[in-house]
Formats: sequence, structure tokens, C-alpha cells
Amino acid sequence: MKEQITDPSQVSDSRIKALYTMANRLRRHSLVSTSEAGSGHPSSCCSSAELVSAVFFNFLRFDMDDPKNPNNDRFLLSKGHAAPVLWAALAEGGAFPVERLLTLRRLDSDLEGHPTPRNPWVDAATGSLGQGLSIGLGMALASRLDQRGIRVYVLLGDGEIAEGAVWEAAALAGHVGADNLIALVDANRLGQSQATMYAHDLTNYADRFASCGWNSLVIDGHNVTEIIQALHTAIRTEGKPTAIIARTVKGKGISLLEDLDGWHGKPLKKGEELEKALSELPDLELSEPLTVAPTGRKAPAPPAATGRIDAPDYDAGKQIATREAYGIALRKLGAANPAVVALDGDVKNSTYSEKFLQAYPNRFFECFIAEQNMVGMAAGMSAVGKIPFSSTFACFLARAYDQIRMAGISQSNLKLCGSHAGVSIGEDGPSQMGLEDLAMMRAIAGSTVFYPSDAVSTERLVALAADTPGIVYIRTTRPKTPTLYSPDERFKVGGCKVLKSSDGDRVTIVGAGITLHEALKACEQLKKDGIPARVIDLYSIKPLDVATLSQAAQETGAIVTVEDHYPEGGLGEAVAAALAGRKCLFRRLTVNELPRSGGPEELMETFGIDAKAIAAAAREIAGG
Amino acid sequence: MKEQITDPSQVSDSRIKALYTMANRLRRHSLVSTSEAGSGHPSSCCSSAELVSAVFFNFLRFDMDDPKNPNNDRFLLSKGHAAPVLWAALAEGGAFPVERLLTLRRLDSDLEGHPTPRNPWVDAATGSLGQGLSIGLGMALASRLDQRGIRVYVLLGDGEIAEGAVWEAAALAGHVGADNLIALVDANRLGQSQATMYAHDLTNYADRFASCGWNSLVIDGHNVTEIIQALHTAIRTEGKPTAIIARTVKGKGISLLEDLDGWHGKPLKKGEELEKALSELPDLELSEPLTVAPTGRKAPAPPAATGRIDAPDYDAGKQIATREAYGIALRKLGAANPAVVALDGDVKNSTYSEKFLQAYPNRFFECFIAEQNMVGMAAGMSAVGKIPFSSTFACFLARAYDQIRMAGISQSNLKLCGSHAGVSIGEDGPSQMGLEDLAMMRAIAGSTVFYPSDAVSTERLVALAADTPGIVYIRTTRPKTPTLYSPDERFKVGGCKVLKSSDGDRVTIVGAGITLHEALKACEQLKKDGIPARVIDLYSIKPLDVATLSQAAQETGAIVTVEDHYPEGGLGEAVAAALAGRKCLFRRLTVNELPRSGGPEELMETFGIDAKAIAAAAREIAGG
Repeated sequence: MKEQITDPSQVSDSRIKALYTMANRLRRHSLVSTSEAGSGHPSSCCSSAELVSAVFFNFLRFDMDDPKNPNNDRFLLSKGHAAPVLWAALAEGGAFPVERLLTLRRLDSDLEGHPTPRNPWVDAATGSLGQGLSIGLGMALASRLDQRGIRVYVLLGDGEIAEGAVWEAAALAGHVGADNLIALVDANRLGQSQATMYAHDLTNYADRFASCGWNSLVIDGHNVTEIIQALHTAIRTEGKPTAIIARTVKGKGISLLEDLDGWHGKPLKKGEELEKALSELPDLELSEPLTVAPTGRKAPAPPAATGRIDAPDYDAGKQIATREAYGIALRKLGAANPAVVALDGDVKNSTYSEKFLQAYPNRFFECFIAEQNMVGMAAGMSAVGKIPFSSTFACFLARAYDQIRMAGISQSNLKLCGSHAGVSIGEDGPSQMGLEDLAMMRAIAGSTVFYPSDAVSTERLVALAADTPGIVYIRTTRPKTPTLYSPDERFKVGGCKVLKSSDGDRVTIVGAGITLHEALKACEQLKKDGIPARVIDLYSIKPLDVATLSQAAQETGAIVTVEDHYPEGGLGEAVAAALAGRKCLFRRLTVNELPRSGGPEELMETFGIDAKAIAAAAREIAGG
Repeated sequence: MKEQITDPSQVSDSRIKALYTMANRLRRHSLVSTSEAGSGHPSSCCSSAELVSAVFFNFLRFDMDDPKNPNNDRFLLSKGHAAPVLWAALAEGGAFPVERLLTLRRLDSDLEGHPTPRNPWVDAATGSLGQGLSIGLGMALASRLDQRGIRVYVLLGDGEIAEGAVWEAAALAGHVGADNLIALVDANRLGQSQATMYAHDLTNYADRFASCGWNSLVIDGHNVTEIIQALHTAIRTEGKPTAIIARTVKGKGISLLEDLDGWHGKPLKKGEELEKALSELPDLELSEPLTVAPTGRKAPAPPAATGRIDAPDYDAGKQIATREAYGIALRKLGAANPAVVALDGDVKNSTYSEKFLQAYPNRFFECFIAEQNMVGMAAGMSAVGKIPFSSTFACFLARAYDQIRMAGISQSNLKLCGSHAGVSIGEDGPSQMGLEDLAMMRAIAGSTVFYPSDAVSTERLVALAADTPGIVYIRTTRPKTPTLYSPDERFKVGGCKVLKSSDGDRVTIVGAGITLHEALKACEQLKKDGIPARVIDLYSIKPLDVATLSQAAQETGAIVTVEDHYPEGGLGEAVAAALAGRKCLFRRLTVNELPRSGGPEELMETFGIDAKAIAAAAREIAGG
């Protein structure tokens, strides 16, 4: 990789001058583009102009014509509302013509109000504050795993430092000594609606990063020489990440805006107001040309995946929990595809992701009890080519729902596994039961949701998840369930399995996971009652196999859905929506009220999702 | 309030000895009850036994026979998996007979696997780690507001310190100087699946709390004298909260468990294993009686609410955003009910909760950009009688979904407002758009979900939210919309409004919020086309007015739902599920793919939820 001059004693005065000029060019672009758009956050751009100028034009090693080159350094704008300054730096760096900056926030533009990967130079969507450091840490650790030697720069606002997710990332980064991660905090004192908690008392930030094991520095964020000195120190620091806390002024350079409340997310009016502001930004001719340094290294071929995954190996009827099969499948996947990595939130002995750890310790990332960072890191890893599987209890993924939502906007290639779904976990009680995870995961744009019922389908669906682009959620179950499928059974995105069926079926029971086994038991009971029932394993909750469900509704005229989940947004609503307007008798069995501690079987009985309840509902609507 | 002897130089040796004995009694109960239950976390109880003994029997002022007395000090077990030690302390303190401890985790018991308010001595459910400090801070600040002088003790595990939510609470507690909040960290070194990040390097924890403005102390958590000294210091410290970092040993006192991996969440086997452990806990006779000190103060009458809220005052057709009407309503509610408080995540000038701040600054809590803590604090405040309204952008409530989930388990009287719903926010782009919030909020047990369309209904629904027990979510819209209702129109939980209807209606359009206005426009267009359409304002998304919807389906035979939300778990699925199996033509218009920046109207057109799209769908199914 090309060596840059980063030692401030070696950087020429002319270059320093040019970097100041570039900062003002970035300001100018930010003002003009937001005024043209009629909305946006110019004052938040102005405070970070020197920081962005110095990083992009004196430190970053990035092939502008190959933004996905994994050898590129990475720059993440965690304070996503300052998007115009990022777009400006990219344009000045040659990514696209500066004229395009005038399309900011337009429907036909990829220069969105907050950065999204719709723009090829953006790795991950930001704009929900406090997520960038996790994403950056994921990239930094993925790079370290591949020994690429890239550096990751994350620009944060001081307001977002209040987000706990920042401190999850900071703690882990310090703990693992991620010295290729550099956080720059644009401490401009002002949040959206008032001053931040610490305003310009910056030692607090520095102390907190230091207490997390970081090298931390406080500088004047408008002094290019200080910025270069700090960044130079950062890239020479070994064994720990560096946080540069930069004292800045919101709206810096524009007298109308400087350090004033009431200018967050507000553009200048075109005409006199804008012109006056622009007149305060002199010296727009660069004293020497500035470019973003290329990496000098081509993108390597992606790691070879054999694609060969050992077939499941379970005898019919063998009792094994799908969570355990998940661990087994993950280990097999690790052998077949070196891009697969696993992340855990200190529950690896419950989710069984420890099986992956045992086989591939380098590709396993213990994130401790910090689910937001676990998901954010995984999103970052996926942005640099990894296929991350993050697993924890289904209910604890709720902790990271905003990170999952943002990963959806990034269209991250992220795999999530939630174990311990539903009341069937038993005695631990409601705080540990995932009862809203299907609603949560289905409502992510472009997501895929799998809910396997036995070990064979779990293994196949885990492998399928790795091959399915985007966010894939796998819901697993705590108790053991019998193996239903033969090892060569095939599963597909949007599929289902009709496990019991006859021409005379009078009712269809649709279940998945633990309730599928109850459905099969109910089917036996109903058979004895003379009511032939169809049973469908709805292992793909999103997308749905609408054709098979429609056919079942038409042929049997009665549907019972049953799920270990609350009534809203789960399996039953998905089926009801898919069949909306179609005449048939319909019963949804769900966990209709707040559950409690108890035995798994007695809870399933109490909340009406066991074989007895299914058979009763089926009898009622099938007229048995 | 009765003064206790807390100065360790004044505490007698006999009392110290009794507190040690009590710790072993708590251990004994924890071992026996978990062995009886066959599951649970005895080793996590053993590490905290002296801490719990000292807090309960030498510091806490709590009327055991009146657990809801707002003058009670509060004890929160943030490390909820140590529930057995809490149940043991409550039993030893006289809350209920010790024999009841043997019902731990049984379906018929209120001694659940993790604490829930099903047990009257518990204020808030814990067990999703890292939430207790926020809840405790909410209680501490509510008490400070009411000048009650209570103290709040929060017992945390060291594993959960990795959760960012802890640091959101810590930062705010330090910032506001919550000196009646005391955090005790049971640093037993071992997480569930491995050692914690810092193991017994406790200065890290102390430094981090100190950097957040806390008084912080490191002690031996098994030394009762040190514990008393630290707690005594804590209660005498003014102007800042205190964190006591207690070095402990997991499984302390039981040779089979002490400081060993592999014993998290695992009871001892009844019989020899348990008996041997119990034999290691000597001296179970107290050298002097120990009791929990009563407060000596009766519960005061709750603050008087006038109940009189000024009627809405908007002319028909007046353009005003529902988010602004929310702010106006909140301010009116503040006048009518002194129990109402408001919490913000630095967006008060966007959600308009600033109107409440301006009128009632003491009852307004700025939580900065830290939504988890904002919701956790609100749950804590509701547990001591406040009616908290937490507001932020709808999408950012996703950040606090796990806290909302736990508040659902607590059945907290918590009101949430999410503004900036859907693509209609426009240019800021997808990161700022709430498009999964209805799915998220509907899937909370016992929740109520309102989605007003104009200023009058917003005001009425905000008032109704305050009067409706439990979690109520109010979804507001960014753009201005015309006033539809007259000031005296009435709204109810589970209601809807049929705004257009005739005997010959051939289709029903169901909308809410911004799409209701599009539905009304579509109705006009359809009228011109000779297709009379019914229009329903579905302001109560949960519960639903199933009767009115069913009648519409029957009478018009065709339903179009339209919402500014993703397809899953929102208005359309709710209606589809309510009408499942009923024959009628059905179209759901939703935001079917990842949106982007653009103008509000062009986005609504692009994603097919505007009047034109509604009219086209209606025409198609009504055969026009």
C-alpha cells in the first residue's frame, strides 16, 4: 500500500493550506446543496469540514474507481445527517462530478438525505445515531482477520455519544485492541434541540474512551495541523484504538450559523442569505492539488467456498433441539465457506453457536452481553464480504431492532438466529421468551424469515440462509423435537411442506417450530374422531407459499394456524393476510396474553397452543 | 422517616454477624428453591448474598405490608436471573412465608424465574439485562420531583455492564446528579458462557462510572463491613450517584460452585449434591433479629387530577400536523393531571413535546439521544405513579424495543409517541422513517395503538391514552393535514369513524393518519367515476373495531386498506386478520419496498399509497 506523508512535521505548508481550502470547499458544497434541496443539515457539515478534509485528502487510502475494493480504508459517517459533507468529499475526491451535488435529496438521486448504500461509495446506511462505531469495528475486525491492514475512520457527532450502542462498541474495541479503528468525535456542542450533556467539557469524552482501553486525544477540530498530528498518532498507535475528540463549532465559518441554537436541520435560504454565507468562505482555489490516495492493490478474489456441506445425519424421530441443530449446521457451514463468521452475545452455550467457536475460533466474535454492537458489527462485516451469523435468544434481538432496521436499509447480508422462541422455553419466564420476534423480523424490508421444526430442516435452512442475499432470520426452539425429515429432503425460500394430506381433508392445520409437532399430534387425534386434517409445516414464514396455502383453504375450507408467538405480526397474521378475502373458516391460535413461568408443556396448554387446543379448534370449524 | 444506624463504626459486631448469617440463609434458600424447581441460577445468587443482606436488613426503608407505598425505598434486581435471592430476602423480610420459596418457577406461583410485578413486591420486570439502572433512575428522579427522599438501590451483574443501556442511564444520572441512586455491581467475574470482558479488573468499571460523574468505590462484596461502609458513604454523598463495584465470587460459599465456569443457570441436584452444599453453610441462627426498616410514613393520596382538559380548538380544514397537535395536547394534559411527565430524546422541537417543557419544565426530562434509557426511565416513573409520555421519531423507538417489551411484561403505565411515521416525512430518507413501528407496537402484550389523522382526534387520543392503563402508542405524522373533526367529536379505545358511507357503497377504504386523507381524496375521484366508496378512519389500530369492519366487508364486498408502513404487522394485516375467512375482495396498499429520499407527495405516489393508487385499487376490485 502506498505510503502517505502523515507526519505533520513533513507535511508542507502549502498542503496544510490546501486542506483548509478544501474544508471550505466542502462547506460551500454543503451550503449550496442543502439550500438547493430546501432541507438538510448544513451547520452539522460545517463543524466537521476540516476533519473530513484531513481524513479524505491526507490519510484515506481508497480507490475511488473501485469503492468495493476490500483493500480500501473505510470512512463511516456515523453522524449521518452530515451527509452533504460526505457527498462533497466524494465529489471532490473524484467519485462523481461535483454538479451532482445539486441533486441532493431528490427522488432520482443517490445522494440521499442520510447516507445509504444506494450510493456505491457508502458501505452502510447511517442516520440512526450511535451505530457507526459498531459497523466500523466490524469492518476493522474483518480486515484484521483477513490481514488486509486497512484502517477504519468513523466520524461521530457529540450528540450521539449519549447512545449506549457507542459504548458497547467502544468497550469491545478496547478489549480486543482494534488499533485499526479511529473514532473522530465532532464535538460541536449543540444537539438538535439544545446543547449536549457535556457541551464543550471534552475531558469527559476522553476519559470515557480511555476507560474503555482507548488512546484518546482532545484537539481543536478546526486546526488542520492538530488534526493531522492526532491522526498520525492514531495510525502509529499499536494495540489500542484511538479516539480523537475534536472541539468544533457548529456552523463554523458562517457568521449567521456559528455556535447558535435553532440551526439544526435547517438550510440557508437561496438568494441573499446563502450568498452572504458563501461570501464568508474565501480562498476556494487549492494551493496544490489534493486527491484521495489510491490503495495500489487490486481487490483480491473472494475466498473460495467449496459449497459442499455435509448432509444432515439424524435418524427419523431422533430428539434434538433445533437450536442444537443450528450450531451443528453453523459448524458445517464454516467448513464449506470461509466467508462465514459467527457473533455471540454471551449465550453461545444456549444457542449452540459454541460449536462454531470450537471449530473456527478466529472467525468467532464474542460480543459479550451487548446485542446492539453484535448486530452492528455484523452489518459492518457483511459490508466487507463476510457472511455473519449473529445469534442470541430471540427476545434479545429486540435490543438490536434499530440496528437490524438500519441493516435492512443497508440491505446487509446479515444472518440472525433467535433461539428460545416462545412460551415453550418454560420456567425462565416471559423476559426470556421471544414472542414478538416474528413480527419484528418480518417487518424488515427485504427480509427472509425461517422457522424450522426439526434438525434436518434447520440444517438445510441455515445453509440456505448463507446462500440467500440480505437479512435472513432463523427462529429456533429450546426443547428437543423429533426429527421429521429424511436427510435428503430439500427446502426453499418461500416453500412449505404438506406433511399430512388426503382428498377428504376437512381442515388444514398450519404450524411451524414447536407447534408443528403439536399439529401432528392433533392430526392423529382428529383422525380418530373421523376428521381428516391436512398439516402444513410453514418453515418459510417470509416469503410465504401462498399457492399451497390457497389450495389448502380451497380444498379443506377451514384453516387453523398455531404459533408460539403473540397474535400480532406472526405466522397466523401472515397467513390471514395472504388469504385475505378468501372464504374459509379460520382460527388463529396464538399466545393471547402475557405468559409466566411454568413447565413448557403446561404453558403450551395454558396458552392454548398445544395439540388439545388445536384439535378443539379444528373440530369446531370442521364441524366435527 | 426513621433513622437507621448505617455508620459502620456504630453498627454492632452482633449485627454484622447477623448480616453474615442472613447472607448464608439467602444462599440456602436460593440453593434449595432452585434445586426444588430443577432450574435457575443459584451460583449468581450466592455471589450477591452479602450485598442483598446488607441492603435489605441494614439500609432499606420499606413497608413490607405496603409494597406500593411511594415512600418506600426501592430495590431493583437488574440481574434478574438472581431472582431466588430476591425472593429469599423478601421472605426473610416478612413479605410472605419462607415456605413459599419452594414454589419457585411454578405455574401457580408469583415467584417467577425472573422477577415480574406479578409479585406485588416487584416494581418492574427484569431479566433482560442492563435495564435496571434506567428503571431505577426513573424512580429516583420521580421521587426527587415529589421530594420524597427515597433511595433507589439497583443491583447489577458485571456481565450486563456490557449493555449500552447501562451507560445511557449512568451518563444521565451523573449529569443530573441523582444522588438518591445507588448502583451495586456484583462483579463475580463469570458470565453465562465465559469470563466477562474485564473479569476482576474492577478499576475499569470504577473509572467508567467516575467518568460519568459518579462517586465510585471498589470493595470486597463478601465483606459486610466494607459493604456497610460503602453504602453509608453512598447515602451521605450529595450531588452525585454512587456506584459500588463489589468484587465477588460466583457460587461463593459452595465449594462445588465457587468461581467455576459451567455453573451458570444450573441448580444443584437434590439429594447428596444439595445436601453437601447446604452443609457448607453454617451458623444459620441469627445472633440478633433482622428486619427491614419500615418507612414510618403512610402512602400519600395520589396527586389530584382535575380531569378537565380544554377542548380542541381547530376550525374545520385547518392545516396542522398531528405531531404538533400532540404537543398541544400534552401541554393541556399537563395542566389537568399533575402525574403526567414527559421524556424526550433530543427531538422535542420535532415531536413538539417542547410545548410541555415550556409549561412544565420540572416535569420534563431531557434524556438526550438515548432512547433505551428514555423508555426505561419512563417505566420506572410509571412504577411509582407517574404517567410518563416518552416521545421521539417512530423509527427510533426501535432502539428501545427491548425496553418496551419488558415494560409490557411489567404492564407499565407507559405512553409512547412516535412521530415522523412513514415515507411521508420525505427528503430525510429511510433512516428517519417509521415503517415498522405499528408491527412493533402491536406485538406488545396488552398494548393499545392509536394512529390519529387530524388535530382533533390527536388531542382526544392523547387524553384517552393517559386514561387507558398500560402501554399506549400514539403514531403521529410529519406533514400538516387538514382538520376533519369538530371539537366535540368523541373517540374511544377500539373505535373507528365511518367518514363516508351510503347504502350503495361498492368498496370500503380503510386508512389512518396521512393515508386517511388520501382515502378521502380517492373517494371523491371514485364518486365521479360512479363508484360510491365507504371511508373508515381506523384511528384505533389495536384493539380494532371488528364489528364495523365486518359490516363494511359484508355491505360493500370489497376492502382496500392503505397505510404508510411496511406490509407486515401494520394496519392492513390487522384488518386482514380480523376479517380472516370472510369472503370479500381485498387489497392492501403498503410501502412494499425500501424507500428513499424524495418529496413527501412523490414518495407516496412512488410507493403506491396516494389517492391515485387507492382509487385504482378500488376501481379494480369494485369492478369500476
